Amino acid sequence: MKAEIFAIGTELLMGELSDTNAAWIASRLPALGIELQWVSIIGDSLEQLTDAFTLGLQRSGLIVTTGGLGPTQDDLTREGIANALQETPVVQDEVVRELERYFQQRGQEMPSRNIKQAHLIPSAQFLPNPNGTAPGWWVERDHRFIVSMPGPPVEMHYIWEHQVEPRLRQLVENEVTVTRNVKTMGLSEAAVDEVMDEFFGHDNPYLGIYSKADGIHLRIIARARDVTAARQLMAPVEEAITVRLAPYIWGYDNETPEQAVGQLLQERGLTLATMESCTGGFLANSITEAPAQASYYKGGIVVNGSEMLLAQGVAAATLEQHGVVSQATATAMARAVRQSLHADVGIGLSGVLGPAELEGKPMGLAYVAIATATEVVERELRVPPRRITIKRRVSNTALIELRKLLAAQPAL
Amino acid sequence: MKAEIFAIGTELLMGELSDTNAAWIASRLPALGIELQWVSIIGDSLEQLTDAFTLGLQRSGLIVTTGGLGPTQDDLTREGIANALQETPVVQDEVVRELERYFQQRGQEMPSRNIKQAHLIPSAQFLPNPNGTAPGWWVERDHRFIVSMPGPPVEMHYIWEHQVEPRLRQLVENEVTVTRNVKTMGLSEAAVDEVMDEFFGHDNPYLGIYSKADGIHLRIIARARDVTAARQLMAPVEEAITVRLAPYIWGYDNETPEQAVGQLLQERGLTLATMESCTGGFLANSITEAPAQASYYKGGIVVNGSEMLLAQGVAAATLEQHGVVSQATATAMARAVRQSLHADVGIGLSGVLGPAELEGKPMGLAYVAIATATEVVERELRVPPRRITIKRRVSNTALIELRKLLAAQPAL
Repeated sequence: MKAEIFAIGTELLMGELSDTNAAWIASRLPALGIELQWVSIIGDSLEQLTDAFTLGLQRSGLIVTTGGLGPTQDDLTREGIANALQETPVVQDEVVRELERYFQQRGQEMPSRNIKQAHLIPSAQFLPNPNGTAPGWWVERDHRFIVSMPGPPVEMHYIWEHQVEPRLRQLVENEVTVTRNVKTMGLSEAAVDEVMDEFFGHDNPYLGIYSKADGIHLRIIARARDVTAARQLMAPVEEAITVRLAPYIWGYDNETPEQAVGQLLQERGLTLATMESCTGGFLANSITEAPAQASYYKGGIVVNGSEMLLAQGVAAATLEQHGVVSQATATAMARAVRQSLHADVGIGLSGVLGPAELEGKPMGLAYVAIATATEVVERELRVPPRRITIKRRVSNTALIELRKLLAAQPAL
Repeated sequence: MKAEIFAIGTELLMGELSDTNAAWIASRLPALGIELQWVSIIGDSLEQLTDAFTLGLQRSGLIVTTGGLGPTQDDLTREGIANALQETPVVQDEVVRELERYFQQRGQEMPSRNIKQAHLIPSAQFLPNPNGTAPGWWVERDHRFIVSMPGPPVEMHYIWEHQVEPRLRQLVENEVTVTRNVKTMGLSEAAVDEVMDEFFGHDNPYLGIYSKADGIHLRIIARARDVTAARQLMAPVEEAITVRLAPYIWGYDNETPEQAVGQLLQERGLTLATMESCTGGFLANSITEAPAQASYYKGGIVVNGSEMLLAQGVAAATLEQHGVVSQATATAMARAVRQSLHADVGIGLSGVLGPAELEGKPMGLAYVAIATATEVVERELRVPPRRITIKRRVSNTALIELRKLLAAQPAL
């Protein structure tokens, strides 16, 4: 089944496009065998909404919408659907009573404008919304479907999971789509492209290549009548990736560098400490994204300037001889923090975050060091001179290098 | 002029909608007097692209597209435009030579498929792209316009700023839209709503209210024939906000908490140090987002567990008597880091980041402390138990409280 998504709301068009609902829904469609064809962001205009639903019903079997179900004059999703289907909304008394109860429980009287939310057209059924006043709509006519849900994610997610997904699952006896994401670091996009050359350009399984802040990702997409068949279809491609790129693979699917590292540290019972300058806390903040971090992360030091480096155990001679931005200093940082926080592994990051150069060294130059009891891994990086890029790349590189080190040395 | 945006690329529809280009462009249109009506995300399908351009040219004066200009068979933006306009692309020899030079400079031979990027239709002109191989297209026919830019943000931003915006500015002698964002913290959305009641529900100037991680934002939007007139139109609303909400306002427009604090610290020549537990480096990472941070931020400590708190100067008696998660500990952290890093101001954050409770205290409970030479500001927070929400809210609250403290005490 072909589907499209409408994210509805003028605020989404006013230079503040913070819609996250479309991505959330999009990520759930492939496993249902539903093929997303379009995403549209549409303002609160009855004319535009009517046009959009009219066109959408012509070209798609399913339209999923979020937003525009509130009680105000600006909320026009219901009206747009009714117009497109040329049906007339009628008040449903039992829903009015439900709304009245909702407000009563909160010690309030129901504003009269909320009655709008109790309207229904003949082709629609309500999708109950226990987390808010706006029920969703499930519309079916001529084997075409519209699912309308409120915009607040907490309400939308609940309705999707409890009402919409089960109904769609029954509806769609279609092929499913399975995706597999393999994440590498250490080879250029062109090099990965060449290694996997013969697998590109096919339709099913499809292989895509993407350059990301945490390396080069390969994504396999396979369609088949069920998940097992789709997995079989993609198996030869995944095996080729595994065999040809083994030393560069650090994670799969939605795995992040901090999760990949965290899992290995936890399995081995090892602890980690960090000292960072050019990433300004990005590394610590990444590591603490993983819920289990308290069991292996001892803590981190965010340093600014040589005064603090000295206080944290980096030798004055190292700074004088090599400067703050140097491999020697990064390594001294890794060793110092490993020792002072009594950790098994220390990471030291030093570089130029900008906006200006430092010690005559350019913005984006950075040094990574990973210290264990017996050895040190060192890396020099040159990252494009954008603040967020520097923080992200240097931090990710450190985590992925640590992941590789742990994988290569099972005894560590 | 009415406009729409197409973000083009199947990968954007595959459950990984990471398009940021549409939002970037959308935020630049109002000041040009261009009204964004639609945003569509469209896959790499010639049929869908042809349909989209055909429809778009009927309903909009301007279509801005990103993506689909690469050299591969999947890159079909040019073909979609040519189809919709029923024009035939022809190779431009001088552009082929430019592409050859581009590859030569990188010591490579031009792959033959890149010739595709040197095609042009009669209604189109090239938009040079110094950062990549894909030139953009500027298309004009029957007073309707299509601007096609490559997808990589660094290429797109450059073309927009150097080529597209100047051309659009000449083109549009229309009314302009001016927006003003006022950011508050300390009152609930309902309370702000009530205070500003009579200004809501008008069309021009329009007042919107939004609940964000850094407080309640009020956004005024005014349309007029020029910027001065639009500013005059919004002046009474902005004045009412300023008068009625003064103690709660901490920033304007795109200002972030870290910028608001950073500016005041810099003006006063004051320095800052931080010690955080439940935010896991988020606070340090936020502070170091501001490019000038090196001049006032001494550094930060990210602590995990009481061992490190003791080592960083928090008294054992404080931890024993009050626990790690307590106002007393947060205050001791602020004081200790202020002293050890020789800063004028110290921030201490302690709380429960989760996933489980700590010392019998619930996930999301947090304590903020700001210590100066003479005083301490203390705050208890209860944040919804989501990891990223806890990090963001607690960190933002600390920065905004510090901003208020600095604003209230000009002598500090």
